[in-house]
Amino acid sequence: MRVEVINTGNELLIGKRVNTHAAYFGGELMKLGIQVQKQVCVPDGDAIGKALQQSMLESDLVLVTGGLGPTSDDLTRELTAELLGLELIEDESAMRSMEEFFKKRNKPMAAVNRKQAFCPVGAEIIPNPNGTAPGVYVPPRLSGDYQCAVVLLPGPPRELYPMFEQEVIPKIKALGGIETPDLTLELKTHGVGESDIQQEIDHELAAIEGLEHGYCARLGEVDIRLVGSVSAVASGRAVVEKHYQDSIISDQGEELPEVVLNLLKAKGLQMTIAESCTGGLISHRITNVLGSSASLTYGFVTYSNESKVDLLGVSSELIEAHGAVSKEVSQAMATGALIRSGADIALSVTGIAGPGGGSEEKPVGTVFISCAIKGQETITQHQCHPRQRVSFKEAVSQSALDLVRRRLVGVEI
Amino acid sequence: MRVEVINTGNELLIGKRVNTHAAYFGGELMKLGIQVQKQVCVPDGDAIGKALQQSMLESDLVLVTGGLGPTSDDLTRELTAELLGLELIEDESAMRSMEEFFKKRNKPMAAVNRKQAFCPVGAEIIPNPNGTAPGVYVPPRLSGDYQCAVVLLPGPPRELYPMFEQEVIPKIKALGGIETPDLTLELKTHGVGESDIQQEIDHELAAIEGLEHGYCARLGEVDIRLVGSVSAVASGRAVVEKHYQDSIISDQGEELPEVVLNLLKAKGLQMTIAESCTGGLISHRITNVLGSSASLTYGFVTYSNESKVDLLGVSSELIEAHGAVSKEVSQAMATGALIRSGADIALSVTGIAGPGGGSEEKPVGTVFISCAIKGQETITQHQCHPRQRVSFKEAVSQSALDLVRRRLVGVEI
Repeated sequence: MRVEVINTGNELLIGKRVNTHAAYFGGELMKLGIQVQKQVCVPDGDAIGKALQQSMLESDLVLVTGGLGPTSDDLTRELTAELLGLELIEDESAMRSMEEFFKKRNKPMAAVNRKQAFCPVGAEIIPNPNGTAPGVYVPPRLSGDYQCAVVLLPGPPRELYPMFEQEVIPKIKALGGIETPDLTLELKTHGVGESDIQQEIDHELAAIEGLEHGYCARLGEVDIRLVGSVSAVASGRAVVEKHYQDSIISDQGEELPEVVLNLLKAKGLQMTIAESCTGGLISHRITNVLGSSASLTYGFVTYSNESKVDLLGVSSELIEAHGAVSKEVSQAMATGALIRSGADIALSVTGIAGPGGGSEEKPVGTVFISCAIKGQETITQHQCHPRQRVSFKEAVSQSALDLVRRRLVGVEI
Repeated sequence: MRVEVINTGNELLIGKRVNTHAAYFGGELMKLGIQVQKQVCVPDGDAIGKALQQSMLESDLVLVTGGLGPTSDDLTRELTAELLGLELIEDESAMRSMEEFFKKRNKPMAAVNRKQAFCPVGAEIIPNPNGTAPGVYVPPRLSGDYQCAVVLLPGPPRELYPMFEQEVIPKIKALGGIETPDLTLELKTHGVGESDIQQEIDHELAAIEGLEHGYCARLGEVDIRLVGSVSAVASGRAVVEKHYQDSIISDQGEELPEVVLNLLKAKGLQMTIAESCTGGLISHRITNVLGSSASLTYGFVTYSNESKVDLLGVSSELIEAHGAVSKEVSQAMATGALIRSGADIALSVTGIAGPGGGSEEKPVGTVFISCAIKGQETITQHQCHPRQRVSFKEAVSQSALDLVRRRLVGVEI
């Protein structure tokens, strides 16, 4: 199946925004065994029609993102209808959904929004529960000149992703006669480098008949992907577990915050977090997960020395003696947070995010991470992540959550 | 000047890597007043030739990245020469540089690297001090069929960026006779919808001669982009300011956390944040900004009722009487945080992130945002953002930071 992707939007061509859609579609379609043959990015306006025409002549399916909004530069719907020689008519149910969308938000619907409910005759509206712009599915051979199917999708990821996964993937499967693809297993790991994994297990995985495998390195995480028959995937999994059992975070796609929350829930424990250099990121990531309120009650963002003393009961002499970024203060932050909140487990981080504030002894990137558990010894890790500020925070949050995970599952630290 | 960008590489089409080159070129070329008219991504191999041919017919300059390496799927150089009908010959100085590169690293040069020193007759080698693959510059009208100039560039950013900035930009300026480029201004706004903006000012902006304009809606933000001569952009700005003066966040690309921090710094104020439903996101966003530690000292993540009482001194009777998500509790959180931290300004949020916990009176998405300032009245906003959990948090963080901004600049709320 020949698939092309067209991303529209001036912001993608003037350096204002990195195009993440192309990688998203690439990854999702690979799960169906389809490799995108071409991706094109054009500005809003007439260029869309030209790109669409070219792609329609050379592929079986064209996915178009963007340009479905209410403004004058949102022309994708109109240009597609024109190209296919189809009339645009108002879709009543799309109009109703949009009215509902505004009503819920207690906002008046502007007149310009009306055009978003228009659909080429014979095409199908794809509902958008997360925004005002519905998608459009043009089935193959709807217009005499083209064999190709076309899907128009909204640009914002929070609208695009659910629509693509819930509504479009089943259509693509039907179009391509794609049945049950091979099994795909993704083992997420923390604490081993991609090149180590590559060197240590790649030959073993390559030797398993019928198994495809790949790696994807993210910040503080390497995902190992196994694709093949049930037995081939099981053999691959055994190889990974033999080497990295303790480093496997999840096998169902869960990321660390969810994994930690599931462990806390299973054990009936409550957690608290005292963050200095991560500035609230760990609490933020935890509270992104549904149901986190049952397990996380208190969070402390103690950026200043004063707040560490005042909120967590760290002694100012300790800070004076060892510095705010030290094993001793990290430990005192964790035990203080534990006492202060009455939780069962406390996580603390203190470090130097940079770019300033480093020294020879404690360079930028230095961080101390402590995990205190009621009735158990407090454990502290000393790490260095010499990265840019935002990546540093992200990397530290991964290590911190993994420290909690390791303690909760009882693996060696 | 019509410019197209071709990015090559399978990894960009299978979801393995986000294509950051497109945004990079877009940004760099906009500085010269050039908007990329199309960006295409194709896999390694023959598809490159086809895409290149198409782009060469429709533009004055084609920038190609990737496929200059030593392996068998690196074919960009060969396909370009073939298309132009030019012979490839070894470039002596390129070969010397490459030998030098390996010598410096004390590594033997593999035989396959030789092909990297080949260049189409009449084209120009662009030195690569940061890698083995030199770039290639094909001037316009070198081959009879094409008017277009072509630049072949290496894929890795650490090689591409310096080469582009030092060697290619001057060539583009010369090609296009570019002296003073158009001005680009981006006004970020919060608090007005994209469709309202469209309806209210689009016709006024369209009427300004020599001005191009566009909008980009993000979560809790609409960016208005103005491109044109100094006077056209100034006229456009005046239109936007006439309608939305109070809603303009920034004119230099700064996002809300940075804008708020700059205001705090300018006024010598310290801020504290008490977050319930946003769970640390606002503190996280603030602390992503360099130098935030001077203005943000305390942050409270008070998810549970108990922590609101204990850390912020909210009375449990108040929570009992009005519920944790209420104007009264939000206000008490802000004033409590102010007192507790000794800061000059306190921001608080309490709301229902969902999907559970809503009621008829307070549906999912309800949020109360308060801003307390020492010696001034505490102001509370009641909003509803019926979105998915993560988007809800994001939208609330935008509104909350904008409330602080409005108070600090003294606009009506």
